[in-house]
Amino acid sequence: MIERAIKWTTEARAGEARAGVLQTRRGLIETPVFMPVGTLGTVKGTRFEALESEELDAEIILGNTYHLWLRPGAETIRACGGLHKFIGWSRTLLTDSGGFQVWSLGALRKITEEGTEFRSHVDGSLRFLSPEVSMQVQAALGSDIVMAFDECAPGEATHEEARLSMELTARWAKRSRTHFDALQREGLDTGRIAAHNSLSGTQALFGIIQGASHLDLRRESLERTVSVGFDGYAIGGLSVGEEKSVMYEVVQEIAPLMPADHPRYLMGVGTPEDLVECVARGVDMFDCVLPTRNGRTGQAFTSRGKLNIKNARWTTDTRPLDEACRCSVCQRHSRAYIRHLYLTGEMLASILLTHHNLAFFLDTMRRVRQSIRSGDFTRFRREFIERVGSGVE
Amino acid sequence: MIERAIKWTTEARAGEARAGVLQTRRGLIETPVFMPVGTLGTVKGTRFEALESEELDAEIILGNTYHLWLRPGAETIRACGGLHKFIGWSRTLLTDSGGFQVWSLGALRKITEEGTEFRSHVDGSLRFLSPEVSMQVQAALGSDIVMAFDECAPGEATHEEARLSMELTARWAKRSRTHFDALQREGLDTGRIAAHNSLSGTQALFGIIQGASHLDLRRESLERTVSVGFDGYAIGGLSVGEEKSVMYEVVQEIAPLMPADHPRYLMGVGTPEDLVECVARGVDMFDCVLPTRNGRTGQAFTSRGKLNIKNARWTTDTRPLDEACRCSVCQRHSRAYIRHLYLTGEMLASILLTHHNLAFFLDTMRRVRQSIRSGDFTRFRREFIERVGSGVE
Repeated sequence: MIERAIKWTTEARAGEARAGVLQTRRGLIETPVFMPVGTLGTVKGTRFEALESEELDAEIILGNTYHLWLRPGAETIRACGGLHKFIGWSRTLLTDSGGFQVWSLGALRKITEEGTEFRSHVDGSLRFLSPEVSMQVQAALGSDIVMAFDECAPGEATHEEARLSMELTARWAKRSRTHFDALQREGLDTGRIAAHNSLSGTQALFGIIQGASHLDLRRESLERTVSVGFDGYAIGGLSVGEEKSVMYEVVQEIAPLMPADHPRYLMGVGTPEDLVECVARGVDMFDCVLPTRNGRTGQAFTSRGKLNIKNARWTTDTRPLDEACRCSVCQRHSRAYIRHLYLTGEMLASILLTHHNLAFFLDTMRRVRQSIRSGDFTRFRREFIERVGSGVE
Repeated sequence: MIERAIKWTTEARAGEARAGVLQTRRGLIETPVFMPVGTLGTVKGTRFEALESEELDAEIILGNTYHLWLRPGAETIRACGGLHKFIGWSRTLLTDSGGFQVWSLGALRKITEEGTEFRSHVDGSLRFLSPEVSMQVQAALGSDIVMAFDECAPGEATHEEARLSMELTARWAKRSRTHFDALQREGLDTGRIAAHNSLSGTQALFGIIQGASHLDLRRESLERTVSVGFDGYAIGGLSVGEEKSVMYEVVQEIAPLMPADHPRYLMGVGTPEDLVECVARGVDMFDCVLPTRNGRTGQAFTSRGKLNIKNARWTTDTRPLDEACRCSVCQRHSRAYIRHLYLTGEMLASILLTHHNLAFFLDTMRRVRQSIRSGDFTRFRREFIERVGSGVE
């Protein structure tokens, strides 16, 4: 029997929704799972102890290849023993390929068959990222799940633009796979561990499906990605400016077609409602900067929708951010206090809002998993969406 | 027997150094003690759970009357039930009087017999602070230890300047006492609790000794402050630009003359060496922004002196900030990682450096207390000072 880098097992279903367990070389992850984003090797405003606490219990976080490659640089991280050791995190790490970040640079980049030339947003230096470079950097980082290097098309891309982009992504997927395999053979993955529990101890590689809002291209992309063969499959290029209904439609059409025995990852999505709706359409993994970024700009996600902490109506409001929330922030601190911290520019405002938001996202996913397992997902979904839309009092 | 607001008991001595227990209406505090500064109702960059953890175990923190009066305002805090409830902290709180902050405004303030008129650094509005206003604000805050409203003279003040300032402070001390007592009778203290353990449940009031670097004025100030009668006594107006030797001399001359059965508080001091040296001269309580402020600017205090995290020599250094430190930051994170966080502007740099610095200050004081109790303070002091001066490798 060939040892694999990861294993994923379905344990319960509710329509297209799946509850399962993803086994990586660093631990077990119950899915559907939300993965907090640790762009530069830190989930902004959060200590790792909090992420590991029973309250948040994040089993997997992300790192960004583009950002870490520029600062502190792949060689610095390699010299420190890889990303896990560098940041002090022993649970599972997923790294993106840098493709999306480079694409986001817009006018600062030039895409060719070979790869993408761009100017660093940090110091303006000319850099070049390709499937091979991305795989090399991700091997130096030693993440447990590596993403193939892809090209993203804008949400409103025409069929012709989206086709060219999708085909380039397909060719890059092959090059990613080939170079990734070579690096694994050469032992350049800093996160390598001894094979155990019938896992190989090597990195896992996920392929990415593109094609913008064009379902025929999405289906073709899926087929071509699967034919290369990956440990898991992701839907990329959504939540990049298209209508929400378009995103839901693409996920609804594509997710059920993705290999049933591999995890399905929807990249960069989304709001709590998006998570629940896309689980219902068959997705297992999500990442998004919303809980952390919006925390830093004064927005709390609650069971009754978004709360803007800057609002003067909270000046002397001694209630917690979310009266239904059991997180340590809601157990201790009031809207009035967090508003004061935010208005005076105190770091603790970001720390507390980020913590609450992560708790809300991670707890929502916990409840999603439980409801799928208990056969109660349909009711959970209806009540959750209804309540989130009801508005904060 | 008259119930008092606080009690302080000496339990061991080593020369002038004292180990004791300060009992407040909210708990027991072992002295000598370092009090982290929570200017705007938050010890910057730190969650209260960390302050309460066994690792830091801060039994008392400070709030700044001036800052809290301007934002969010005394009435907002009163409406939220006082400072303890507003910030979510049930251990002891000390508030300063605002005198020092107003003095620090320099050209923005005008001092008269009645009080100090100044322009808010927040919005430029004209404000007036006096002994009476300060006592009212501190009653609204409901802190457990209130400081008298004083006037500070510059470190290099002439004898005549320092005399005028000291005499004004003495008159303001009386007015503070009188108005404080009236407010207690009127029950305006939001932190009031029922009398228990033979404590009155009311706020405690500390007097402040001024006189700049002039020992005769310092002695006269001490005498006049004691004649008013307070629950504890503080040395103010040091660490404001005078030579370090002058500070040590004033403390050495004055602290032993301060009432032996009351706690002695040296305001705004200082480095870890200063704490140890001033404990040796008879001081029981300290506060300082150094561990938090310097943490935010990239400086770590260690058992071998200061470490500047920006230094390029730490780029791939996998050692902790302080190899002798057992705090959670040093158990988990490297200099290389914290340097990376600092250089990329990540909030976690400030969070981790602040935590380590607080752990170092609080642990130093724990070791000071233990060494006084075990009769080992002289050796501890010599070795500590030697080691701190040896330089980080």
